Amino acid sequence: MPHITLNSEEPGIRGLLRYRPETGRPISELAEVLLRGPSTLTRGERELIAAHVSALNECRYCTASHSATAAAQLPGGMALVEQVRADADHAPVSAKLKALLAIAAAVQRSGRDVTADLVAQARATGATNLEIHDTVLIAAAFCMMNRYVDGLATLAPEDPAIYAAGAQRLISQGYLTPPAAAGDQAEVRRMGG
Amino acid sequence: MPHITLNSEEPGIRGLLRYRPETGRPISELAEVLLRGPSTLTRGERELIAAHVSALNECRYCTASHSATAAAQLPGGMALVEQVRADADHAPVSAKLKALLAIAAAVQRSGRDVTADLVAQARATGATNLEIHDTVLIAAAFCMMNRYVDGLATLAPEDPAIYAAGAQRLISQGYLTPPAAAGDQAEVRRMGG
Repeated sequence: MPHITLNSEEPGIRGLLRYRPETGRPISELAEVLLRGPSTLTRGERELIAAHVSALNECRYCTASHSATAAAQLPGGMALVEQVRADADHAPVSAKLKALLAIAAAVQRSGRDVTADLVAQARATGATNLEIHDTVLIAAAFCMMNRYVDGLATLAPEDPAIYAAGAQRLISQGYLTPPAAAGDQAEVRRMGG
Repeated sequence: MPHITLNSEEPGIRGLLRYRPETGRPISELAEVLLRGPSTLTRGERELIAAHVSALNECRYCTASHSATAAAQLPGGMALVEQVRADADHAPVSAKLKALLAIAAAVQRSGRDVTADLVAQARATGATNLEIHDTVLIAAAFCMMNRYVDGLATLAPEDPAIYAAGAQRLISQGYLTPPAAAGDQAEVRRMGG
């Protein structure tokens, strides 16, 4: 049960974005730009970075959600996502993506763990300034999202089919929170939200 | 020296917000709502939570910046901020703020460290659902900001007077990034930014 009473039964971050739309809006916009905006990194690669950081933070909801969204957009599917989560250094991804995943893992521990060496290794594989910037910020943003989701003890469904369906919705509609449907608003009113 | 070439010499997060305005805008909006928007927590109390988390993350720029901004808005000034950073459990703040600072410190370690007991203790001091929510999100957001600032090795000035001046600017103008002044834009062009 969540630590606070929310105004919907939506799991994970979705219930939080709806509970406090003033903060939900910029958080959703940040996710949309970072994970789906114009970039030389594919959407699948960026979701993989998000899934990797979420797994390192042991955030069950975000790991399942972003693993499903990465898997649906990467040729290697869920098998590749699981290889990265188990052993990113030896997973069959490009040298550039491997170097960026190593930077993301450093950010997960502490920003101060991103060494000049890690950055030089990424550059040697062809990573650009903007790719390095966005990798650091995606990893940092998921250190926020994971703590937000778990710090309020939000619900995380068990059924993988729920995350697979959520991934399809994210891929077609994106992260910008849709306005509550009429039925949802009635529900919120009924619950005194 | 920062890990990537920025388009200004602004220190800390300011140079990053200017480098990538697409992400800078939602990050600034999130900070504005959380730290300065309508709330039953004072602006000084919220800046104190931000400073406390930044100190726990050992982020020199954010700690100095938000300590100065908290100090300028709290009756206890910098002496109080330093007492909280040294030993929050015994600092002379209200029981409610002490309980919220304990939640923020748990979030800094991991979202999963926010126990039902910590939340119950905050409630017993009169903390509301929204105050608990905002405390968790402020702490989580600074786990992002701190990693963003340090993960790209941005500059952190030594001189406390620079942070005191920055605090006065934040207090009068807020966190929404002002558009680059004409002089700044010329500078960015000159640097090929």
